[in-house]
Amino acid sequence: MPDRLSPISEAAVQSVFSATLRVDTHGTGFTDITFAARDFLAQAGAGEGVFLAFLRHTSASLTIQENADPDVQTDLTTALERLAPEAAPWIHDAEGPDDMPAHVKAMLNGVTLHVPVTDGKLALGTWQGIYLIEHRRAPHSREVIFQFVGSRK
Amino acid sequence: MPDRLSPISEAAVQSVFSATLRVDTHGTGFTDITFAARDFLAQAGAGEGVFLAFLRHTSASLTIQENADPDVQTDLTTALERLAPEAAPWIHDAEGPDDMPAHVKAMLNGVTLHVPVTDGKLALGTWQGIYLIEHRRAPHSREVIFQFVGSRK
Amino acid sequence: MPDRLSPISEAAVQSVFSATLRVDTHGTGFTDITFAARDFLAQAGAGEGVFLAFLRHTSASLTIQENADPDVQTDLTTALERLAPEAAPWIHDAEGPDDMPAHVKAMLNGVTLHVPVTDGKLALGTWQGIYLIEHRRAPHSREVIFQFVGSRK
Repeated sequence: MPDRLSPISEAAVQSVFSATLRVDTHGTGFTDITFAARDFLAQAGAGEGVFLAFLRHTSASLTIQENADPDVQTDLTTALERLAPEAAPWIHDAEGPDDMPAHVKAMLNGVTLHVPVTDGKLALGTWQGIYLIEHRRAPHSREVIFQFVGSRK
Repeated sequence: MPDRLSPISEAAVQSVFSATLRVDTHGTGFTDITFAARDFLAQAGAGEGVFLAFLRHTSASLTIQENADPDVQTDLTTALERLAPEAAPWIHDAEGPDDMPAHVKAMLNGVTLHVPVTDGKLALGTWQGIYLIEHRRAPHSREVIFQFVGSRK
Repeated sequence: MPDRLSPISEAAVQSVFSATLRVDTHGTGFTDITFAARDFLAQAGAGEGVFLAFLRHTSASLTIQENADPDVQTDLTTALERLAPEAAPWIHDAEGPDDMPAHVKAMLNGVTLHVPVTDGKLALGTWQGIYLIEHRRAPHSREVIFQFVGSRK
């Protein structure tokens, strides 16, 4: 058996809950928004369903990545810089040398993700956290829309 | 306070609406499908919920990116070419030198995304548009499945 | 006309179904989980709606890619190795030289995706399959959470 499926659970889909999280970044790097997502689900009274996050920007991104060793985040940032270096000959440079690389990084990582919710809890793996990655050098104020689709508690 | 959550809104989830958008591309580059998504939501009579898009191909992709300066799209295309150059020693080359790089670009960008919907409108940021990126050189006919899950107006 | 939208179908959203798929990988490479997804939908009695998959790990990823020529998977693996080489000067190396590159690949590909479901069937394109990509060298046991939101048959 290469794979094995667990028993299937079912719940009624009743509501969609929505709220906006504002995140003030400190420039390039990771901001953990896992706690804010948990807070949203608790406040909404979420039961069984799907949590969705959407970032309303094109020079930052969302990712689910390791929450243990902070060196991983440093290395991920370095990896992105190598994939989209400021020194490359970009045409779009009116907003500064870090803007076009930021768009490339945002495109590669994406601005949307979802996490299953079981009994009101994010079904993240042990080592997973939800992060907003700021790709610009300067601090920015960013908006993330949280949604939950599923049953109420 | 590193982040602040807005009040939470709730709406009933009633329906899932689905339709297929056919996009004729002109070869490598971006096609804006934001207007088509808005048209779909208006026709469906969508209220509060989630818009989802899915691309039925493996050598093109979907992205949410800047809708202002067209130079950004040129630079994004160049960035993808650098990440997956035609000159690399690909094994799979029966469909032409641009086919395998197209698969790599599609894998990195992905073929699925979602956008929250508020009062029937896509909750995109000011500078965000939804794009289909054609990664092949030749024009192709592509299919995108649009869905909306949420309340009716 | 650059694009054309089909007629819109509507179905009631009744339930969210959830189950966990365990996948034992054989080390670096692709595992096809399309059949397991179909099995989940059939067992759940899914009708019209959305299938979602979520991977509970940070050194493997999910992708929708070509299901025909196996050389494509080999080339995709090679492409990822070029984008995140083991020989790069990573800080995080306590878990082996293949660990940090695995995190980078997982970030770029992502761990979440969705596929529309029509009449209980995944609306994949002809050449699309759903894959778990193992980025570590050693075999691992991985968990993927499958969900379906929509109508019952």
